[in-house]
Amino acid sequence: MSGNTTGKVFTVTTWGESHGGAIGVVVDGCPPNISLSEHDIQEDLDKRRPGHSPSASPRTEEDRVEILSGIFDGKTTGTPISLIIKNKDVRSSDYDEIKDLFRPGHGDFTYQKKYGIRDHRGGGRASGRETAARVAAGSIAKKVINREGITVTAFTHELGGIVAENITMADMNRNRLQCPDMKAAEKMEEKLQEARENGDSLGGIVGIIVRGCPPGLGEPVFDKIDADLAKALMSIGTVKGIEIGSGFGSSQMPGSECNDQITPEGFMTNNAGGILAGITNGDDIIIRIACKPISSIEKSQQTIDSGGNPRTISITGRHDVCVIPRIIPVCEAMVTIVLADHLLRYRAIRT
Amino acid sequence: MSGNTTGKVFTVTTWGESHGGAIGVVVDGCPPNISLSEHDIQEDLDKRRPGHSPSASPRTEEDRVEILSGIFDGKTTGTPISLIIKNKDVRSSDYDEIKDLFRPGHGDFTYQKKYGIRDHRGGGRASGRETAARVAAGSIAKKVINREGITVTAFTHELGGIVAENITMADMNRNRLQCPDMKAAEKMEEKLQEARENGDSLGGIVGIIVRGCPPGLGEPVFDKIDADLAKALMSIGTVKGIEIGSGFGSSQMPGSECNDQITPEGFMTNNAGGILAGITNGDDIIIRIACKPISSIEKSQQTIDSGGNPRTISITGRHDVCVIPRIIPVCEAMVTIVLADHLLRYRAIRT
Amino acid sequence: MSGNTTGKVFTVTTWGESHGGAIGVVVDGCPPNISLSEHDIQEDLDKRRPGHSPSASPRTEEDRVEILSGIFDGKTTGTPISLIIKNKDVRSSDYDEIKDLFRPGHGDFTYQKKYGIRDHRGGGRASGRETAARVAAGSIAKKVINREGITVTAFTHELGGIVAENITMADMNRNRLQCPDMKAAEKMEEKLQEARENGDSLGGIVGIIVRGCPPGLGEPVFDKIDADLAKALMSIGTVKGIEIGSGFGSSQMPGSECNDQITPEGFMTNNAGGILAGITNGDDIIIRIACKPISSIEKSQQTIDSGGNPRTISITGRHDVCVIPRIIPVCEAMVTIVLADHLLRYRAIRT
Amino acid sequence: MSGNTTGKVFTVTTWGESHGGAIGVVVDGCPPNISLSEHDIQEDLDKRRPGHSPSASPRTEEDRVEILSGIFDGKTTGTPISLIIKNKDVRSSDYDEIKDLFRPGHGDFTYQKKYGIRDHRGGGRASGRETAARVAAGSIAKKVINREGITVTAFTHELGGIVAENITMADMNRNRLQCPDMKAAEKMEEKLQEARENGDSLGGIVGIIVRGCPPGLGEPVFDKIDADLAKALMSIGTVKGIEIGSGFGSSQMPGSECNDQITPEGFMTNNAGGILAGITNGDDIIIRIACKPISSIEKSQQTIDSGGNPRTISITGRHDVCVIPRIIPVCEAMVTIVLADHLLRYRAIRT
Repeated sequence: MSGNTTGKVFTVTTWGESHGGAIGVVVDGCPPNISLSEHDIQEDLDKRRPGHSPSASPRTEEDRVEILSGIFDGKTTGTPISLIIKNKDVRSSDYDEIKDLFRPGHGDFTYQKKYGIRDHRGGGRASGRETAARVAAGSIAKKVINREGITVTAFTHELGGIVAENITMADMNRNRLQCPDMKAAEKMEEKLQEARENGDSLGGIVGIIVRGCPPGLGEPVFDKIDADLAKALMSIGTVKGIEIGSGFGSSQMPGSECNDQITPEGFMTNNAGGILAGITNGDDIIIRIACKPISSIEKSQQTIDSGGNPRTISITGRHDVCVIPRIIPVCEAMVTIVLADHLLRYRAIRT
Repeated sequence: MSGNTTGKVFTVTTWGESHGGAIGVVVDGCPPNISLSEHDIQEDLDKRRPGHSPSASPRTEEDRVEILSGIFDGKTTGTPISLIIKNKDVRSSDYDEIKDLFRPGHGDFTYQKKYGIRDHRGGGRASGRETAARVAAGSIAKKVINREGITVTAFTHELGGIVAENITMADMNRNRLQCPDMKAAEKMEEKLQEARENGDSLGGIVGIIVRGCPPGLGEPVFDKIDADLAKALMSIGTVKGIEIGSGFGSSQMPGSECNDQITPEGFMTNNAGGILAGITNGDDIIIRIACKPISSIEKSQQTIDSGGNPRTISITGRHDVCVIPRIIPVCEAMVTIVLADHLLRYRAIRT
Repeated sequence: MSGNTTGKVFTVTTWGESHGGAIGVVVDGCPPNISLSEHDIQEDLDKRRPGHSPSASPRTEEDRVEILSGIFDGKTTGTPISLIIKNKDVRSSDYDEIKDLFRPGHGDFTYQKKYGIRDHRGGGRASGRETAARVAAGSIAKKVINREGITVTAFTHELGGIVAENITMADMNRNRLQCPDMKAAEKMEEKLQEARENGDSLGGIVGIIVRGCPPGLGEPVFDKIDADLAKALMSIGTVKGIEIGSGFGSSQMPGSECNDQITPEGFMTNNAGGILAGITNGDDIIIRIACKPISSIEKSQQTIDSGGNPRTISITGRHDVCVIPRIIPVCEAMVTIVLADHLLRYRAIRT
Repeated sequence: MSGNTTGKVFTVTTWGESHGGAIGVVVDGCPPNISLSEHDIQEDLDKRRPGHSPSASPRTEEDRVEILSGIFDGKTTGTPISLIIKNKDVRSSDYDEIKDLFRPGHGDFTYQKKYGIRDHRGGGRASGRETAARVAAGSIAKKVINREGITVTAFTHELGGIVAENITMADMNRNRLQCPDMKAAEKMEEKLQEARENGDSLGGIVGIIVRGCPPGLGEPVFDKIDADLAKALMSIGTVKGIEIGSGFGSSQMPGSECNDQITPEGFMTNNAGGILAGITNGDDIIIRIACKPISSIEKSQQTIDSGGNPRTISITGRHDVCVIPRIIPVCEAMVTIVLADHLLRYRAIRT
């Protein structure tokens, strides 16, 4: 009920603060007899790790994952899998001077109001660092869905207003922004550099494609698979919008254009984004999410302190300029977790 | 796990098919000693009822709600409240000729794939009629949040590409589309008339404002209140996109513009849409959702039958041209249910 | 969270008060394509119905069940199954004079303390009548487990201190108390008659056997199948004790006697009652539950009224003398519901 | 759904195997601003630790708990509290020779059947060691209920057939068996010595008293507080029976004796064990549970190996002779967790 667990069959519970002893995750409901090693998980974590690029925070965590339970002889046993990632490069004193300030765009103000207490160091529980635990859980979920031939790919669709227009999926792996348009990627890098110099930050749009998903996943009414995907993605701190298939665009189409007509060979179009009435139809699932710019900026901003007095703030810690591309593996993880959960839910009622 | 229940403390379970004996809802977890009558609920249901306007289906259901449990001497008792709405104006034979066809844009295909059986009459469980049960539950949720001074208002922001630009909230009640821009409302009506004549349908965008919400609602991590709102709204069949505050627009802003700076008098802007780190900040909650055009159209479309053979289909039953404005009370209900749930969840840990 | 729902995959939500318009149940998560008719359910309900025997209440409800959703062409569709049983023979005025009194042994006092309001008529939500909804849900669960060859049988093991000693299961169907020892059954009837004449009531012990259950059902740790069975049975108002296999007796055995040794042909004994470490082992599941005597008695008792003043009370409404045998189908229903749920849970992770 | 989590508001998720890297627990839903230190938890863990007495296993774990999250400045923050206890004194090779044998009375057979794989070392997930995580969680729950004046005490009521008859609660702390009858305690020790010499084991009965519980805790119907207590206690591996108040004894009483009559000063008796219709009535909650004898014994027993061949087994590892008294803090923990959960659930609907 306190929101740190997601999923109904394949469940993921994360814990930990940015500057506590460690962060971690308990994955429960994973089927037995699936090969799983720390190495598998580490590969995914490394994609999310800071310290790789000009847009990323200079904090250099190793993000070394340890498996503490649920694995025997290299295989899952059906019991809960506990993963831990120790916090190593913690410099909490960086945060001492903003201890009593509410950083604009952050959860400082709302955590204080909600709980009457908060761990201010590095954003505490609200830190982006919590998403490392999600990525680790996503690695396990990936094992579950890959067995069925389902894959999830996220990429940079927009950054700082620059749009990937000539989309060539192979380009994705040729630039560190995972943008499928090399020219756009170059312009995005320029925008990032510019923002950094201005002490400012940028947002963008991430595209996500799920391939190989069988029809039938998703539950009618409240747990439609698009509803669960929307929730999972909106639960990433930076996300302010989500659309499925033609999304907001479909609101401007007539039905005769928006409906995906059906032929014996399949759907003629995919405005639905692979989901009809909340259930997958076998086509690719297409999602786009809007990420707001990073809230921590050097530029001076007005705020108040815990006593309610007006103050100005300039945040000079180790912060990214844009959540992209580090958010990409997080998006993939969240979508993968939702799919693994619905895949197992489907099995419970159909055999 | 089968997705017919939403909420963790204030829970709502709907049941029923479009052409079965009745539809209904069980609301559990409602605090005791709240006044509640059938009349209260009926008022909200009447707003969603078909048969009122040129854009709506000519099916004339009374949608008469009965309270079967949970009320004593006009007050809630803390036990489950069961509501039933009988299906009266059912003409299932209308659907006989499309029994074996998969209507484009509908759940026919996916329900068949998921369950291997489906009630084809009027869309069965996937029918928009199920939302009457949500509206009824929303009436009860409204009692819970109104006590705390919270109100929810939805309105037509776009329809068929026409945008409400000169927004005057008072205009909302002066046109049946609940559009806060009278001029836009007139153009929208023209678009609706045109679509009807073409045997086609339209989509649009609904805006939602929550006023009077205290700070502190929403749980960190997976059950952020924006995540739960996104799920609740995306669970309405027609919704293909959702944004909170500046939403997709915020992806193009620099941080210095997007962050809502704070003064002793409050936030200077509301790009966050009233939610920071998944927790309400006391400002208005601002949401926009994209509705696709109605799937049932008279215009001829290609499809297949249950044997996989190519067919054409023209749907001539009693259908709306646009989900707006009938979806408006449904949006209000879903948002209200989420707020009631989080309000009670908040109480469990803070007193 | 409010306790009116049980199960995680196969879920059962009951609603309704003894003297409201109706009682009912929503069964969600039932697999599709299972034949189900009102007649199937009615048969089970008839076993629980009052008015059949000297130990039972003279209230003559028809307990006529109606299926309102989830069935199409005589088969389950995978959507929620809503069942309703109207309250017909309601004489609420019987309860007027005890409106302000707390009946000893009843929930009057605790409901009032918990909610600050209660429906006093016939016990309201705490009435045994609520169990009719459980029996109806159990009929559906029975369809799910019978397909796998699992059956559940409950019987009278003790009543008013008389113990069934020479157990011949076939005898069960030869007496209305469903006691597998004809001689004991006769003595039990004498005890019942005596209690009735004294304006008093009796308790007893119900035995339950599950046959044909495959190994592997039950989840480790908190959702052990014996834990879920204990909860399900203890949730029946009258139950004050439960034991699995040798139960309390096993606390007096040495390990060398209590352990069920294993041979290639199977377990040599069944002290475990078919459950090891919370998971079924393939042997019969053996359960015994203790039922307290009916609380409503004619004999004068001391109590207080809602103002806290001392009063005496003599309850002369239409009440059973003993919950046995009417509780027998309720016990079967609860065990069946738990098994159906765990059967489907098992499928989610093993295929 | 996989049974490693309990509670609805105050939730406890345990993970870990006996011979893995560590065991641990995530406690979510704990209210903020409660003082909590590792020392508080360690005190409770030390009571459960092996190596203290002739009845206990000579395995000498330090059971040193570490708090990894959820605490700031010595207080709970409302975020998940992650506790870890490293496994140190692990001698997995002790188990090599029984790797392919199913130990009678253990979960070896059922885990293998359920998952097709199992961690055989020290019982893996089914080990009693998992209960250390429960005790640690119970320490936190204790903070929640103690604030409201509620306390939980468990004691040895029977052991090896010896019954505590002259109960003097103060005696409890004068013998290591926590038996409130010194004479009985001495005879119990003799029985333990005897069983040890015979290579055998013993069971017993634990009594539990909850004092200071306000009326109103517990939910009607399925989540009655006695149902939740029964589940929680039955989920302890060794428990085979549970009774509330007069329990099985009440099945032999007439209603006129069993009903607890009410006076302005309170209930005249407490056969109900403090619970009416599943809701606490303000009186002490009285529970008794039956513990089977320890399954691991040196005495030779028949069993089969994983190939189905007949074998004999004599278990000579480091094992307790009786779960009492080590189970006592586990019982207290489980009851405390249930009470903390229901206390917070109550707050959600009543303020």
